[in-house]
Amino acid sequence: MTKTIPVVEKILSANDRIALDNRQRLDDAGVFSLNFMASPGAGKTSLIEQTVRRLAGTLRLAVIDGDIATSLDAERAEAAGALSVQINTGGDCHLDAIMLQAALTQLPLDDVDLLIVENVGNLVCPASFQLGTHQSVLIASIPEGADKPYKYPGMYRGVQTLVVNKIDLLPFVPFDMAYFQRGVSILNPGLNTFTLSCTTGEGMEAWLSWLVAQVESYQHTR
Amino acid sequence: MTKTIPVVEKILSANDRIALDNRQRLDDAGVFSLNFMASPGAGKTSLIEQTVRRLAGTLRLAVIDGDIATSLDAERAEAAGALSVQINTGGDCHLDAIMLQAALTQLPLDDVDLLIVENVGNLVCPASFQLGTHQSVLIASIPEGADKPYKYPGMYRGVQTLVVNKIDLLPFVPFDMAYFQRGVSILNPGLNTFTLSCTTGEGMEAWLSWLVAQVESYQHTR
Repeated sequence: MTKTIPVVEKILSANDRIALDNRQRLDDAGVFSLNFMASPGAGKTSLIEQTVRRLAGTLRLAVIDGDIATSLDAERAEAAGALSVQINTGGDCHLDAIMLQAALTQLPLDDVDLLIVENVGNLVCPASFQLGTHQSVLIASIPEGADKPYKYPGMYRGVQTLVVNKIDLLPFVPFDMAYFQRGVSILNPGLNTFTLSCTTGEGMEAWLSWLVAQVESYQHTR
Repeated sequence: MTKTIPVVEKILSANDRIALDNRQRLDDAGVFSLNFMASPGAGKTSLIEQTVRRLAGTLRLAVIDGDIATSLDAERAEAAGALSVQINTGGDCHLDAIMLQAALTQLPLDDVDLLIVENVGNLVCPASFQLGTHQSVLIASIPEGADKPYKYPGMYRGVQTLVVNKIDLLPFVPFDMAYFQRGVSILNPGLNTFTLSCTTGEGMEAWLSWLVAQVESYQHTR
């Protein structure tokens, strides 16, 4: 087993080099970019749909969707009004910088303000692969349960923003918010957090305002 | 990248050899065993808790819990009345046969009728690693959404039983059951399926009766 370790290290550092290239390319075109990560079914695609729908008049949006199979998510993003590209990993449990590099060539980046990359649904592996995006956003969801920070610490440690989705389900499932937040604050103190529901729209305004402010601040400091 | 492929093949076949050893060990002791796989938060631990609680007088149960960190799940299984062992993968996104081999040495197998192995919460990677258990059980959940078979085909293809959990949430989330079942039936025709709620108990009887029948049939044919 030890023989595999150097190979893993080589792949990771090649990945990091390409992630830097991706970042340069995004910065050259002035595209602010987010890497959305979550378990399967936490609501990444729904949050993208709602975000695209509500910001379509304000920002020029593009979405790159990573999935093992199908183009269902890219179709939903496109129907909502974004440019979209689907990556099929063909079995891989995460996106890597090489996949993003290929997908970026499919987009007219000069006509994009905000790019959202939707990673493969997985609370483990995507955290280990930098893509070159400006921020990572973790989407948690109420029915997943409050113990997830404790059980998937690598993911909770490595992100810059947390969205807690499906708060409309709080009356119907047991979820100890104080316990959840304690776990988050141990792993990632002061993490920028939004609680919302893509179904009812509750909490969406704060998320959208923050997102627009991030893009504006990025464009002003270029 | 191509240089890594032979290494991956070598690890997989070493894993399969150890999985065969694990199976032999379980069969020598007469232990029927299940590998529970699911996304994070689909309800693997809740199903184990309810199963242990209700079958404690009928079968001698043991649980091996795989998590990246913490012993929360093993504590829940033990509190419900099972012998339990926690495996911490320390970052790995799946259990493998070597981890199970080590965990089996911690259990008095001759005093166990049914062993449930709870894999790391992940709809991708665990499907690629045989452990040596007799059956794999996938736990899906209603709030995950109905598109999961289409997006995680490897997992849906590789299991012998499907439990659809959290049916008590059907009134509160959009879930197209016909679309879900069509996806399942394409990937895994005739898959043995239970729909239930660990919270309300609805559907638990059919699952428990099936489980007891499986253990009895296994013990009779040894």
